[in-house]
Amino acid sequence: MNVDGLVCPIPITKYPQVQLAHGGGGRLMRSLIHDMFVTAFGEEVAQHDGALLSFEPSMLAFTTDSYVVQPLFFPGGDIGQMAIFGTVNDLAMCGARPLYLSVGMILEEGLSMETLWQVVQSMQRAATRAGVRIVTGDTKVVDKGKGDGLFINTAGIGRLESPTPIGPEQIRSGDVIILSGDVGRHGMAIMAAREGLDFESTVESDLAPLAEPVLKMLAEGVEIHCMRDLTRGGLASALVEIADGSRQSIHIRERDIPVREEVRGACELLGLDPMYVANEGRFVAFVPVQDAEYALSIIRSCGHDAVLIGEVQAKQNAMVTMTSLIGIDRIVDLLSGEQLPRIC
Amino acid sequence: MNVDGLVCPIPITKYPQVQLAHGGGGRLMRSLIHDMFVTAFGEEVAQHDGALLSFEPSMLAFTTDSYVVQPLFFPGGDIGQMAIFGTVNDLAMCGARPLYLSVGMILEEGLSMETLWQVVQSMQRAATRAGVRIVTGDTKVVDKGKGDGLFINTAGIGRLESPTPIGPEQIRSGDVIILSGDVGRHGMAIMAAREGLDFESTVESDLAPLAEPVLKMLAEGVEIHCMRDLTRGGLASALVEIADGSRQSIHIRERDIPVREEVRGACELLGLDPMYVANEGRFVAFVPVQDAEYALSIIRSCGHDAVLIGEVQAKQNAMVTMTSLIGIDRIVDLLSGEQLPRIC
Repeated sequence: MNVDGLVCPIPITKYPQVQLAHGGGGRLMRSLIHDMFVTAFGEEVAQHDGALLSFEPSMLAFTTDSYVVQPLFFPGGDIGQMAIFGTVNDLAMCGARPLYLSVGMILEEGLSMETLWQVVQSMQRAATRAGVRIVTGDTKVVDKGKGDGLFINTAGIGRLESPTPIGPEQIRSGDVIILSGDVGRHGMAIMAAREGLDFESTVESDLAPLAEPVLKMLAEGVEIHCMRDLTRGGLASALVEIADGSRQSIHIRERDIPVREEVRGACELLGLDPMYVANEGRFVAFVPVQDAEYALSIIRSCGHDAVLIGEVQAKQNAMVTMTSLIGIDRIVDLLSGEQLPRIC
Repeated sequence: MNVDGLVCPIPITKYPQVQLAHGGGGRLMRSLIHDMFVTAFGEEVAQHDGALLSFEPSMLAFTTDSYVVQPLFFPGGDIGQMAIFGTVNDLAMCGARPLYLSVGMILEEGLSMETLWQVVQSMQRAATRAGVRIVTGDTKVVDKGKGDGLFINTAGIGRLESPTPIGPEQIRSGDVIILSGDVGRHGMAIMAAREGLDFESTVESDLAPLAEPVLKMLAEGVEIHCMRDLTRGGLASALVEIADGSRQSIHIRERDIPVREEVRGACELLGLDPMYVANEGRFVAFVPVQDAEYALSIIRSCGHDAVLIGEVQAKQNAMVTMTSLIGIDRIVDLLSGEQLPRIC
């Protein structure tokens, strides 16, 4: 569906805000589903119980994520776009082609109808861009003060495209680690928007769909051993989890990890480490050294500034070490708590 | 997994409540996922991005629902069981065999860890009973006052088993309408639990998985034209939506619709109509008259007190009419708002 330029299909003079009855199974709920969601996502989401999808013989990938980010709109994106790209990216990280999404909305009574429409439009644009179809959905409304405007869950189905297994246990000593771009922007964009911080230049989220470079690498025969998108916990946490899962030792070089000046500055100001800050459009890929240059060129051809940041080492202990900017090796570990709540 | 008798795997003396950091991507989140969710649901839910599932050539059904019921525990069930059976039932209503579920949890900071564990155990028991596997999941934590204890989204994948399409547009004049049991119990059970109402006898929710009778009917060759589970909006709303979708006229007889005495009494007291009260383990099936007796006997063999409540009439207008208890025909329509918020 093309949703550009459409006004909110619910008459907002009559229903400026979401009411509890918009989730109650009666006329108002039907109007919300038919007038808004069908307009944006298409007829199939109005089917009562679920969608029927033809599926060629294959392995399928299945994933889910809920999105509770605050604020709903931030420099570089919004919760709707995030709910599409986030789940698309999880499927891509499985080596799968994202095909179908479900959408579950939990609306807080009093949410502005116009805001909801903006989010819904954004979701449809994102789905079109990522090449997926929203095929089934559900809406619940909770009483004022029992939610926070809008939470979105998406689940996704994809068709496995990778001829070989992908995962930490596939990593081999000597594999190189590709990072698809600079880190820390999403978390800092949310932080700045939420706290009203005024950095010298606006930090925009890196929010982006990642299926294209992954599917291209697979189509071109790059042997991907492991992939991971760098969401909550950032690059550091992703690598620690991969090292744990692989029982291999990972070494990275801080000087090779791109961090934009404005992100580095904001992190220093706030006492945060960009290595642990969330991203929404970045991933790492572990590939054999002979595939490294080709993989880099493919990812770059999709508009990502991919770089090599390290390699898997022939050591017995599953840990991540990093040569810091000043040349000293240190261990990279998980944080106990978190840096920023509700960044995704 | 057998979760019976297991104590909460998170040390509740140390972590009596969910903290924001349990959703933050660090050690605490990992502990929640590995110690609690993997213990209950199995290793595969700990996979980072999604589950890979083998799928034989077929049509696939895909559905999602969020569950925001309050209170979390009520006579006859709890939110966890509901989140499993509800999505299983939506797949069954598509004529599909439920196979795989995803679980997305939105936890409110401060939720009792023991409560979460009880819900998680209940989900696993329900999944085992319904014959489905929980294969992927996600957890988010929102700050205190921005949620309501626990919201759960489940999405489900099933394999289509029906040889013919199922839906309102398949209904034919002369089809009979089977109702799988008495109506109104779930809504009244929630209402009583929420408001602390003390009826003469406790009303227990009818919450139940519905795949068994549906799959048995399909296996035995019953020609099911349309099915619908009777959740929000109850029997009346489901029939009105089916009439609308089919452009056929539906007639039912009130005296043939089972309503338990305690439900009827509670509804009278509260000014509610059991025809519109939510159920969580009831469905209607539209079948050709020659299949009616066989379909009834199959549903009854699965422990449901199925009855015939009406038929599709050869009229031009898409409406639902009902012969009331006192013998007068009236039109059944959608309610504008809702009777009970957050019953599912």
